[in-house]
Amino acid sequence: MTIMDSDAGPRSKRAAILAAAVGCFGEFGYEATKWSTVADRVGIGQTALYHYFESKAHCLLTIMHAELHRSHERFLEATAGVDPADGLRAALAGAFDVTEREVLQMRILQNHIDLLEIPRASAREEESRQAARALVHDIEMAWTGLLDRGMAAGAFPARDPHTLAQAVLGLLVSVWRWYRWGGRLDLAAVRDFYAGCALRMVLS
Amino acid sequence: MTIMDSDAGPRSKRAAILAAAVGCFGEFGYEATKWSTVADRVGIGQTALYHYFESKAHCLLTIMHAELHRSHERFLEATAGVDPADGLRAALAGAFDVTEREVLQMRILQNHIDLLEIPRASAREEESRQAARALVHDIEMAWTGLLDRGMAAGAFPARDPHTLAQAVLGLLVSVWRWYRWGGRLDLAAVRDFYAGCALRMVLS
Repeated sequence: MTIMDSDAGPRSKRAAILAAAVGCFGEFGYEATKWSTVADRVGIGQTALYHYFESKAHCLLTIMHAELHRSHERFLEATAGVDPADGLRAALAGAFDVTEREVLQMRILQNHIDLLEIPRASAREEESRQAARALVHDIEMAWTGLLDRGMAAGAFPARDPHTLAQAVLGLLVSVWRWYRWGGRLDLAAVRDFYAGCALRMVLS
Repeated sequence: MTIMDSDAGPRSKRAAILAAAVGCFGEFGYEATKWSTVADRVGIGQTALYHYFESKAHCLLTIMHAELHRSHERFLEATAGVDPADGLRAALAGAFDVTEREVLQMRILQNHIDLLEIPRASAREEESRQAARALVHDIEMAWTGLLDRGMAAGAFPARDPHTLAQAVLGLLVSVWRWYRWGGRLDLAAVRDFYAGCALRMVLS
């Protein structure tokens, strides 16, 4: 059960709409995607679509919130009950342990992350925005905590853990801007390269 | 003389429009900015505005192109005629030797970099888009060349220079998403921290 599936009864089209939207936003870009194209892909009318999402923007914010939730959960799983040095390696590996759809979701998130800064006029959009913003903060604080614990344990050189967390996160998320599934570099090679960069930033 | 000032006769409002647009896009976000607000800030009518820019998108793409040009020029100045190790340090310092307006321009560029991927329907917008895309490529190749030369000279450990260049650039541009002029960390402190991270990525 994921945020993508919540409130989904057996005949709910919610998951199908989100999958279609991720596909369209990933392929055509959010601005160029017509809400009617998403409806067509799911095989429902636009009126039915509005039953689930108030607007294209509400759908985008929902996708962003779900992706942030997935990423946060992944980090918590990777770092639970392990020492900071092992936790850092596991968190880095976990950041690249993703499916083709998740790669699209991460690209969509990165392409629209600035949307989280401006309050929305619609109540439902604003709810999604606030939830997503809270997760951005939680993720930053989780990485900051991991790095801080490693420094306190003497495993990592002492630096400002929050700025270092922001730097590591900035490095990691930058991949999803250019990475294309099935491209020149396979995901494992990208993972090893970027994990190496992050480890040098933290451990050297 | 900069791209921002080109074709500017003594009574040209082009530079003033670009400055106003940077201010509005930076403050309200691009989508929320009304083209009429930009016109008001400059003190001209919307018809006069269209004399200079075909659309709000054309203006955005022009800002992005100008910012990429500035950044590329800064890199070339920093690295001209110096060895790769000194060039790397100079390029990193140069990336943070920016004014308050340039910080806004870099944030606008990063927030809309995905716009460069989709062809534009308008000829003038497409021209700006293609020029901006070419500069993105030039900047990547310039950094790749610097790192490659350093590796060839034995100054940097041998790695894939292109992927390393993308990683360093990803790290550097990530700052402009969160950095606010006059915030908690001053720009020199951010520069030193991120330059340190990049040097560890390249030299260790």
